[in-house]
Amino acid sequence: MWGFLYVRMAEFAWSIFEPIEGTFEFDLFDRAIQLAKKYDLKVIIGTPTATPPAWLTDKYPEVLNVSREGVRYNHGSRRHYNYNSEIYRTFSKRIVLEMVEHYKSNSTVVGWQIDNEINCEMNVFYSNADHDSFRQWVKNKYQTLEGLNDAWGGTVFWNQTYTDWKQIYLTRPTVTHSYNPHQLLDEKRFISDSAISFVQMQANIIRSITDKQWVTTNGMFGHLDNHRMTKEVLDFYAYDSYPNFNKVIEDKSMMPLHDRKWSMNLSTVRSFGGGNFAIFEQQAGPGGWVNRLEQPTPRPGQLRLWTYQSIAHGADLVLYFRWRTATKGSEIYWHGINDYHNLPNRRITELKQTSEEIHKIGNTIFHSEYISDAAILTDYPNEWDGEEDNWYGHFIKESKEAWFKAFQYHHIPVDFVNITQEMSLETLAKYRILVYPPHPAILTETTAHLLTRYVEQGGTIIFGARTGYKDLTGQTYMKAFPGYIKDLVGVTVEEYTLLNGWQENPDVNLLNKQFKTTGFNEVLQPEVENVEVMGTYLNAHYEGKPALTKRSVSTGTAYYYGSVFNYQTASILLEDMEATNYQHLFILTPDIELAVRKKDGVSIYLLLNYSYQSQHIQLKAEMENLLDNQTCSGSITLTGYDVLVLKEK
Amino acid sequence: MWGFLYVRMAEFAWSIFEPIEGTFEFDLFDRAIQLAKKYDLKVIIGTPTATPPAWLTDKYPEVLNVSREGVRYNHGSRRHYNYNSEIYRTFSKRIVLEMVEHYKSNSTVVGWQIDNEINCEMNVFYSNADHDSFRQWVKNKYQTLEGLNDAWGGTVFWNQTYTDWKQIYLTRPTVTHSYNPHQLLDEKRFISDSAISFVQMQANIIRSITDKQWVTTNGMFGHLDNHRMTKEVLDFYAYDSYPNFNKVIEDKSMMPLHDRKWSMNLSTVRSFGGGNFAIFEQQAGPGGWVNRLEQPTPRPGQLRLWTYQSIAHGADLVLYFRWRTATKGSEIYWHGINDYHNLPNRRITELKQTSEEIHKIGNTIFHSEYISDAAILTDYPNEWDGEEDNWYGHFIKESKEAWFKAFQYHHIPVDFVNITQEMSLETLAKYRILVYPPHPAILTETTAHLLTRYVEQGGTIIFGARTGYKDLTGQTYMKAFPGYIKDLVGVTVEEYTLLNGWQENPDVNLLNKQFKTTGFNEVLQPEVENVEVMGTYLNAHYEGKPALTKRSVSTGTAYYYGSVFNYQTASILLEDMEATNYQHLFILTPDIELAVRKKDGVSIYLLLNYSYQSQHIQLKAEMENLLDNQTCSGSITLTGYDVLVLKEK
Amino acid sequence: MWGFLYVRMAEFAWSIFEPIEGTFEFDLFDRAIQLAKKYDLKVIIGTPTATPPAWLTDKYPEVLNVSREGVRYNHGSRRHYNYNSEIYRTFSKRIVLEMVEHYKSNSTVVGWQIDNEINCEMNVFYSNADHDSFRQWVKNKYQTLEGLNDAWGGTVFWNQTYTDWKQIYLTRPTVTHSYNPHQLLDEKRFISDSAISFVQMQANIIRSITDKQWVTTNGMFGHLDNHRMTKEVLDFYAYDSYPNFNKVIEDKSMMPLHDRKWSMNLSTVRSFGGGNFAIFEQQAGPGGWVNRLEQPTPRPGQLRLWTYQSIAHGADLVLYFRWRTATKGSEIYWHGINDYHNLPNRRITELKQTSEEIHKIGNTIFHSEYISDAAILTDYPNEWDGEEDNWYGHFIKESKEAWFKAFQYHHIPVDFVNITQEMSLETLAKYRILVYPPHPAILTETTAHLLTRYVEQGGTIIFGARTGYKDLTGQTYMKAFPGYIKDLVGVTVEEYTLLNGWQENPDVNLLNKQFKTTGFNEVLQPEVENVEVMGTYLNAHYEGKPALTKRSVSTGTAYYYGSVFNYQTASILLEDMEATNYQHLFILTPDIELAVRKKDGVSIYLLLNYSYQSQHIQLKAEMENLLDNQTCSGSITLTGYDVLVLKEK
Repeated sequence: MWGFLYVRMAEFAWSIFEPIEGTFEFDLFDRAIQLAKKYDLKVIIGTPTATPPAWLTDKYPEVLNVSREGVRYNHGSRRHYNYNSEIYRTFSKRIVLEMVEHYKSNSTVVGWQIDNEINCEMNVFYSNADHDSFRQWVKNKYQTLEGLNDAWGGTVFWNQTYTDWKQIYLTRPTVTHSYNPHQLLDEKRFISDSAISFVQMQANIIRSITDKQWVTTNGMFGHLDNHRMTKEVLDFYAYDSYPNFNKVIEDKSMMPLHDRKWSMNLSTVRSFGGGNFAIFEQQAGPGGWVNRLEQPTPRPGQLRLWTYQSIAHGADLVLYFRWRTATKGSEIYWHGINDYHNLPNRRITELKQTSEEIHKIGNTIFHSEYISDAAILTDYPNEWDGEEDNWYGHFIKESKEAWFKAFQYHHIPVDFVNITQEMSLETLAKYRILVYPPHPAILTETTAHLLTRYVEQGGTIIFGARTGYKDLTGQTYMKAFPGYIKDLVGVTVEEYTLLNGWQENPDVNLLNKQFKTTGFNEVLQPEVENVEVMGTYLNAHYEGKPALTKRSVSTGTAYYYGSVFNYQTASILLEDMEATNYQHLFILTPDIELAVRKKDGVSIYLLLNYSYQSQHIQLKAEMENLLDNQTCSGSITLTGYDVLVLKEK
Repeated sequence: MWGFLYVRMAEFAWSIFEPIEGTFEFDLFDRAIQLAKKYDLKVIIGTPTATPPAWLTDKYPEVLNVSREGVRYNHGSRRHYNYNSEIYRTFSKRIVLEMVEHYKSNSTVVGWQIDNEINCEMNVFYSNADHDSFRQWVKNKYQTLEGLNDAWGGTVFWNQTYTDWKQIYLTRPTVTHSYNPHQLLDEKRFISDSAISFVQMQANIIRSITDKQWVTTNGMFGHLDNHRMTKEVLDFYAYDSYPNFNKVIEDKSMMPLHDRKWSMNLSTVRSFGGGNFAIFEQQAGPGGWVNRLEQPTPRPGQLRLWTYQSIAHGADLVLYFRWRTATKGSEIYWHGINDYHNLPNRRITELKQTSEEIHKIGNTIFHSEYISDAAILTDYPNEWDGEEDNWYGHFIKESKEAWFKAFQYHHIPVDFVNITQEMSLETLAKYRILVYPPHPAILTETTAHLLTRYVEQGGTIIFGARTGYKDLTGQTYMKAFPGYIKDLVGVTVEEYTLLNGWQENPDVNLLNKQFKTTGFNEVLQPEVENVEVMGTYLNAHYEGKPALTKRSVSTGTAYYYGSVFNYQTASILLEDMEATNYQHLFILTPDIELAVRKKDGVSIYLLLNYSYQSQHIQLKAEMENLLDNQTCSGSITLTGYDVLVLKEK
Repeated sequence: MWGFLYVRMAEFAWSIFEPIEGTFEFDLFDRAIQLAKKYDLKVIIGTPTATPPAWLTDKYPEVLNVSREGVRYNHGSRRHYNYNSEIYRTFSKRIVLEMVEHYKSNSTVVGWQIDNEINCEMNVFYSNADHDSFRQWVKNKYQTLEGLNDAWGGTVFWNQTYTDWKQIYLTRPTVTHSYNPHQLLDEKRFISDSAISFVQMQANIIRSITDKQWVTTNGMFGHLDNHRMTKEVLDFYAYDSYPNFNKVIEDKSMMPLHDRKWSMNLSTVRSFGGGNFAIFEQQAGPGGWVNRLEQPTPRPGQLRLWTYQSIAHGADLVLYFRWRTATKGSEIYWHGINDYHNLPNRRITELKQTSEEIHKIGNTIFHSEYISDAAILTDYPNEWDGEEDNWYGHFIKESKEAWFKAFQYHHIPVDFVNITQEMSLETLAKYRILVYPPHPAILTETTAHLLTRYVEQGGTIIFGARTGYKDLTGQTYMKAFPGYIKDLVGVTVEEYTLLNGWQENPDVNLLNKQFKTTGFNEVLQPEVENVEVMGTYLNAHYEGKPALTKRSVSTGTAYYYGSVFNYQTASILLEDMEATNYQHLFILTPDIELAVRKKDGVSIYLLLNYSYQSQHIQLKAEMENLLDNQTCSGSITLTGYDVLVLKEK
């Protein structure tokens, strides 16, 4: 048995539903849904707000988004609208209302995707509606101009004191393209709030009309608090997974992780709602637009592999993008399962096999839980503040990818956890190890207190350079570094320097191995007795001074590293922290990803070979291969891109 | 005997002729023409529409061109006007009318150059007049909005359905700078039509007043159907030849062909009117503007060589740019024959020698015919559509240059032929070999039919990757590749992949030699019996599968190569096709270009040495050296940049 | 004894002084100045015009600067105003008037800094006020449109004739971004005049109210005739010295000179007023904004070294930037002496030592004179015209740095001298050697006459390629190169070529050593008998022809080199010219800078080690070490970044 169960449609079809302002038509999609029903397919409908009709943008150009420099983005691409135009909200409400009213009782329609890929393509907004809305947002947040001036550093720097609310705008072009960093951080908070409120507005309409159809949206893009949106607005999150983006050279940063970058993304998505999710667009062929994002074709086996990758990380529903390759428009190279010609091809054959397998193991694997006892902490304030701050921002991405790669290549399942000011110790306490390497410049007393209690109750935590010197406005504390966690790690930063490539980067000796440091160096100074110096600088004027420290606190441990992490340094630290790596069950190669899932007390092990080459591995215990129901153990060879789904016997 | 015969003037002199709106003065140029007459010089006058006067642009800024983002281009450079402003057309008509009326009976004035270098510097236009005019152009072309929506893919992609003509614009800024590709293709057709109609307007005025003075324009720039313009509007085409542009590093793409790039350009110009042409600006010294295009000085011998290069390819008239180096403005480094100081220099000496030679051989060589039995096919739809399409566009330039270089270095004279939907078999049948390597993504049933008949009557043709998958709107066919020529070449494309540099490019074995492929790989699948596999892929997941095929059709042959050409692959294919290389007459080095011209049944051979080094060559037959009237044969040495003009005895 | 004597304040504090339009408050700074007085600190107040209040820019946006493309620079950074807005001038006058009236009798306040870093960040201006003001400036300069058209080459090039003053603007966007070069040169003169008149306006107010407080401004930025401003407006010039900018990779051009670039800057500042100056911002820690200019931390010893560097070149007052590192805004990484935490750090310790030393030697060293008998000539017309002219502009920077490095590394103290049309022979005659390597394309008959008299009275001068072919409008002479200095150097330029990297650069033999030439080659032709050929080209088509000549004129000597200088060529020429290098007193390594100062007939020698490494040097005479009052001679070791201040015994 195999085949499709769901079909998603209509996400850009506003002018089909409302060809003329105020006139609604449903015929085309009624027929399509009828046809879906005939083949026992369930239908997911997208609200079409990502692409307003030409008649709307032409008549009301104020609904369009605008660049910071004031250039309006026009009709002809997608996502050219802004979230804050009252007119756009009014039109959006009406089209959603009409569609939901029409389909609320249609049992083939099971759920709604709101808009499409919120904040994709562009995640800054400078229309007049956005400026006005931001002014109001700031007023709500700070209440008084004094509060605002305080938060933005106004009275003391470059004369940025505001004396009337009407002087407030989102950032506008300035000399040297340098903007008030505190204002920029608020700007991103505002964009996230705007996007969420736009989605919320649509969700409210749907829920007010039906409780039989679920509500979600798809994506994962910048300047959006997906955690909050998932919890407050959605029934579950839907992700669009395109691993071959890693072969688009324009984003070279993806290269170190290759396809594992998507394991990282999927792990992040898992953290949004704290559990499983859906894939609304799983890559089904070469991707790319006419003028950008050119991807090679997936190799034989990769479509199947990537499907298992999604499932391994928590996808309980996988839809492919798309059925047939479009013959028109900017996305003619975004290939579907079928080519333009609709004739047989190898991708169809491969997805048929995949589908058969999934039908077979679905009951065992779906709705299971991803098992891990280590987590990487992330948070939005540092991500957003770091975008503009060259003194720590890019270290976040670098260290996060380094740590994830180290976890992956050592077969240590890991979660992402988004840390907030409201977080409870309970959420953290389930992890043995926490890494907060994204260099949390912004770290409050509240967070420091939480992490201290985490360590005191037995946890292990590690911090990297630039930790703890800023507050939630992005202003620096008048404190020795690392601010409020000084007492936890037991060190202060004696001095520091950015490494800007002008001279050779200093080396460190860490746990008796030698590495080159990058990005930043902090010279550490132990402040209490039980601080163990685990690494020292080997050159520069701070030669011999501490670079890595470790301190026992009650039954827990706190590490501090005064530089930026890479794969090698993360790897030896994982060893020192004795992270859970399943060596009692498997001997694996780095090209294999191990995911462990549990359901009804039974553990399922997914082994995914991301290499074009065969991999030779060892099973130390007898297991059942769920795909062929054979027992296996000992030496096993996984061919290129192959997958094993094992159950402990 | 030597000396100049023609002088060209006035192409930017509008404010001399019309210093005040509506007031016309001719004194300065009357005196100049009088002086020309005294020295027996014929005069060519340029209409001055390339540089409107300050009083005009200041009073009517709507005549100016505007960037896509809305930034207006102002007075101070050149070509800052748009073709579609009614006001500009009115002023242009009047100045042309006044000038032609004034000079129509002046026998010293032999012809008119319309404007100057149409579409040079900038070949996109976004003024309001252009948007309005495009709206009308689209209306004329499609008649109905349904027709437009069909052609632009509107109803099915990103909600781009238009419901009122007033919603139509030329492309405007969009999110991600991705524009509707079908609209973009029409935009370029529109620009070409606008430019031609502007030139036509002036030509009509001139021809309505005089039939004794010819009409042309000069240049060769983008977004302009020069073939159509030459046939419909001009008496002949005039080209501006600056070979030292190949030493301006900003366009590195010229490097592989060096000075031969200009042989390619001249061959292209020859195709415009299907015969000889004029050179209005032949490089006479170092070139460059104050802030760009910096060229070194031509080396001794190069000015003479380049003059012969122009003549070899069909120039019956050569004017140098320019008499004396300007001392003012942006072009003070665009050197004339004379330097600022007007004192003797080596360039004058060299052009004196050249002039003496040309006077001597002119009767023999001018009005002769360029002889070739091979042609490279080109067409505007693919060139314009390919500009934005990264999935084939840059392969056009790459393969075209590779083939031209292969023809050149193997001393095989070659023509360019612009293929249209109206072309007759007769035009093609005169060639033994056709290469259509510019990867004609757009290929209609009509063209497929024409090319099939060409092969059936005995021709040889070769296609490269990406052939035949699009129609004239730029939409893809719902067909197996290569579309309508599938039956001619006898193969389909089983699968394909773009090569984007992410991993090592696959190798192919072609005719028993091994090459690395670039750009794109198509895996070919023979569909009929008589398809010969001439090359296979040597690695990747399609290792061993066909990459090059050859099929006999009646007395003709059709090749298909699933990748992009380079000099090496083109060279071995030329060998396989047994192209005419004149080895019975000459043994030449690659640095020598061979051009064969015929007049009154007599063949003239021009041998041009593009190298700074001497070249040792062999003449297998006795020939007459037209420059010194000596007989020559056997071993001959051409010194650096030297030229031989030979006549078979 | 040690400690601070001065404090500078208020330069961005407009909204503190005038929180509401027309309402003035002085309380905060009154208290600050009171506190300064308590600690015996003198106060320097900055006028706050670099950052207008939000209420001002919001109400009168016409005071803001605008990009050439018309994008307005808004509130939120600094220096976003324009100099020519009448409204801004009115507000500026009032705030300055109010502040000076308030503090005129306060004896703690010793002087005024006008605005802050004039022309920093942005030195082009295109607001409407600037366009209008430029129109008036041009009218004043040329009186008639004929004069203007002549100067800008209007009637002969690209139809740029102006027939009404209202057609005149500063450069506006044009096709190809090529602007009229003569207009551009005037545009820069206009910007300089605008800036100076804005500073003058403020200085006039201050001087009309008080004669007890001096007037200066700080900086050194582009498009500003600092020499004229210093002489006409200021009591002395104040410079902001940040040597660690040389470690900001974004300006790689600083690398060849490293910290010595700042010796060059300081030497330039010394030339503004022809003597000593102040440092208002001496680097006191790592520097950088949030999103740019990232500098590493200064190494131990460098803050002290750089203080001595400033003093060695003429600083009689050194203020550090800044007291404490800011915790808010774009400059949180521009570290002060104190860190955010105000706890002890090594920079405080180092500056304490430095301060003690300066207190000790101050009387001896301050108000002394920098001694040199060689000078590098510079001028504004060539600097500004060369900005846009790729055919000589970048050679200026390249050769100037090469010569300065050669002087520095050979321990030859050198001055910069700004040459003007009004300069007297007397000013130049005090130098034995002049180098005018910044390739003075613009060179008038007046200047040629002055330099000829300089040589005739015994001076030695050297010119580089591109000398003398333009007049003060930037138009070329109709003369053989090098124009008006042809008779002085005794050569003309036979031919020339730009070297644009397309082929290997030719070599020259200079004084029996072989070098590769860069940038430009001029082939020289001796025109009189006593021209000595000192170097020839070794390849290219001008192989064997002269590249360097030398000619005796009376008791003087004139060199001409037909290419661009580098460190090596400048070094051997210095040797040939027998420049004063103090080898009778010292044997030094290149890493040591030698500065010689004289006061009351006594010579002081400062030896500065810019290397991290120790340097071994020799003193050939007995000297007194002023820092420890010991006598020293013979072999001495300077540790990394150390400094010696010696007095001849």
